[in-house]
Amino acid sequence: MRCTTTRIKVRQGLFFQHLNKINRTYASQQRAQEVVFSGIQPTGVPHLGNYFGALSQWVEMQNAPGTNRQLLYSVVGLHALTMPQDPKKLYEDRMNTLASILAVGVDPQKAILFFQEDVPQHAELAWILNCYSMMGRLKRMTTWKSKLAVKEGSQSSDIIDDSGLNLGLFTYPVLQAADVLLYRTTHVPVGEDQRQHLELARELAQKMNRVMKNDFFPLPTTIINPAKRILALKGSPPQKMSKSAPDPRSRILITDSAAEIHDKLRVSHTDSIDPESLPEDHIPSLDELSPNVANLYTILSCCTGEDVSTLIPRYYRRRYGYLKADVAAAVDAKIAPIRKEYERLRKPDGEMWLREVAEMGRERASAIATQNLAQIKKHLGINTL
Amino acid sequence: MRCTTTRIKVRQGLFFQHLNKINRTYASQQRAQEVVFSGIQPTGVPHLGNYFGALSQWVEMQNAPGTNRQLLYSVVGLHALTMPQDPKKLYEDRMNTLASILAVGVDPQKAILFFQEDVPQHAELAWILNCYSMMGRLKRMTTWKSKLAVKEGSQSSDIIDDSGLNLGLFTYPVLQAADVLLYRTTHVPVGEDQRQHLELARELAQKMNRVMKNDFFPLPTTIINPAKRILALKGSPPQKMSKSAPDPRSRILITDSAAEIHDKLRVSHTDSIDPESLPEDHIPSLDELSPNVANLYTILSCCTGEDVSTLIPRYYRRRYGYLKADVAAAVDAKIAPIRKEYERLRKPDGEMWLREVAEMGRERASAIATQNLAQIKKHLGINTL
Repeated sequence: MRCTTTRIKVRQGLFFQHLNKINRTYASQQRAQEVVFSGIQPTGVPHLGNYFGALSQWVEMQNAPGTNRQLLYSVVGLHALTMPQDPKKLYEDRMNTLASILAVGVDPQKAILFFQEDVPQHAELAWILNCYSMMGRLKRMTTWKSKLAVKEGSQSSDIIDDSGLNLGLFTYPVLQAADVLLYRTTHVPVGEDQRQHLELARELAQKMNRVMKNDFFPLPTTIINPAKRILALKGSPPQKMSKSAPDPRSRILITDSAAEIHDKLRVSHTDSIDPESLPEDHIPSLDELSPNVANLYTILSCCTGEDVSTLIPRYYRRRYGYLKADVAAAVDAKIAPIRKEYERLRKPDGEMWLREVAEMGRERASAIATQNLAQIKKHLGINTL
Repeated sequence: MRCTTTRIKVRQGLFFQHLNKINRTYASQQRAQEVVFSGIQPTGVPHLGNYFGALSQWVEMQNAPGTNRQLLYSVVGLHALTMPQDPKKLYEDRMNTLASILAVGVDPQKAILFFQEDVPQHAELAWILNCYSMMGRLKRMTTWKSKLAVKEGSQSSDIIDDSGLNLGLFTYPVLQAADVLLYRTTHVPVGEDQRQHLELARELAQKMNRVMKNDFFPLPTTIINPAKRILALKGSPPQKMSKSAPDPRSRILITDSAAEIHDKLRVSHTDSIDPESLPEDHIPSLDELSPNVANLYTILSCCTGEDVSTLIPRYYRRRYGYLKADVAAAVDAKIAPIRKEYERLRKPDGEMWLREVAEMGRERASAIATQNLAQIKKHLGINTL
């Protein structure tokens, strides 16, 4: 609905005028308000884990009443280059990711939604931060170590040979710090695994403030996402729902059809307990259930908004088929409008709108990034004009 | 003279129109001609070593008749950040470097003269190249190893701990490769110590061409500078003339006054041989002389254009004072016009011209950089518009 209204405005040619006004307002208010930055990798259409783990929070933050927050949501293509990519597929994935973000309800008028790779200041600030990042500090990053360990097929990440890995992967956390600091971000929603990267961003903010003799960068703080972790529907031991798991039936994409959802849930893993053999006098908590079964309740709860403590008694001691059917129906009800909007956006007419959104986001993000980087350069003595 | 003419044109407002025409011409011709890229660190006013080692070659290339070369000369401020800098001093040094380049005779209409830090595509391409640079490859760079060894006070560079060094220093050769490749450079004038960095640029060009399935990047080749290495006037063992040597009398800046030049040469090191005791029947070659004495002949030859084999007999068996006095006079004669032009450029009126030159260079370099990076991004699938 929101998107439709906006499109009409664009066609009337009023939109960009309006946007310029917003831009100026945003720039002048920037120091006074909270600035939230969040990035997502362009892996294409998100699954339920991405949706309940991050994207739904993006929409919530955007729609929270009475806040004076500037929201920056970015599809981070420069980060994607750290892994091997097929250019055609990467291009498609980037567009699909953007379309998905719009489809879940992010409003490009309320949030600045943009491709990181469209704003050169990210790479510029990353270079600057490189010069203030110690090699030893980066080597202690565990995400890097774990990627290395996976790559080398090693169990231990203590003794590692990083020679065969690319420098992009090693300097990834510095670019991430640049993403955040470029907008003088005050708040970053992060998962547990990203916490150490934000810690680096805080350290770099402090260091740069000392070097520049100016409290230019606020120290960004985390917004811990209260959302539950969604597990894969299949696989043992249970893993986080993931884009890269080989079995596509282990994940539900937010564009899956009703039939696909039902099919994936039908074959999803539960456990080998006969529900009817369970004791009648003790209703278990979520933690007492096997992870795969608990996961179904989590998904149901995320979709319906009902608390799991309300849901568990409803299905307890009944065959898992009942639970699965209701989860499938709830997921479908939740994502049907998203799927519909996504399909509309991926039609030729929608592609034009995606480009407009990207251009609008680029302009708004650039306005802030240009201004901030100019100040940073001045503080460092590398300004010219 | 050239600069004065240009300044009048600027005031007439014709200059930028003319420039735009040049820009279009350059962009369209780019593939057909040789492209030369050369960078200089913003260390302020150059000394004779910088002048005869690089800058005089810049002027020669610019004035070579009948060539279809596009020349890009860049003051590379992003590289300067890899070492600790005082912002105010760095700003001044950058302007002094630019003024010096103009003072020696580089014509900003013939060459594209610009600050690297004014063209964001350098950092953007550097990030991209990071993702295709292996850690192990960079660790084998000996310049990095030597900086490390110097820093650690170690004699051996085989076993090194790089933890306390900054990432900028480690990734320096990748930014250098980006500087070169960004303009699809075909030729790079390099000193011996930079040869391995150019080798990395060639490897990255090949790798990117494979990844992008397109022969986008020519493989840059070296232009070996025939200029002699100028040694410091003082210090034992004799070192390359250097900006960072503690004794300022070990170097002659291209802005030194006649008195300073004479003073520095007067106290310059020679050797302890009594010239009058030397054999009459053998005129030595340059290589047979002690390094400090040979260096005086080299400087004299560079200033007057006479061959050292002509010069040596003239001063052979005479006290070094005669040679020193003539070297001082020749250096003064060579750099007096440079000094005068430099002083003019560093007056308030000259500062305006420096900014105009920088802006003109930025525009011309950006026109090429923007176009090339857009194509690179498209080949990688991270283009948007």
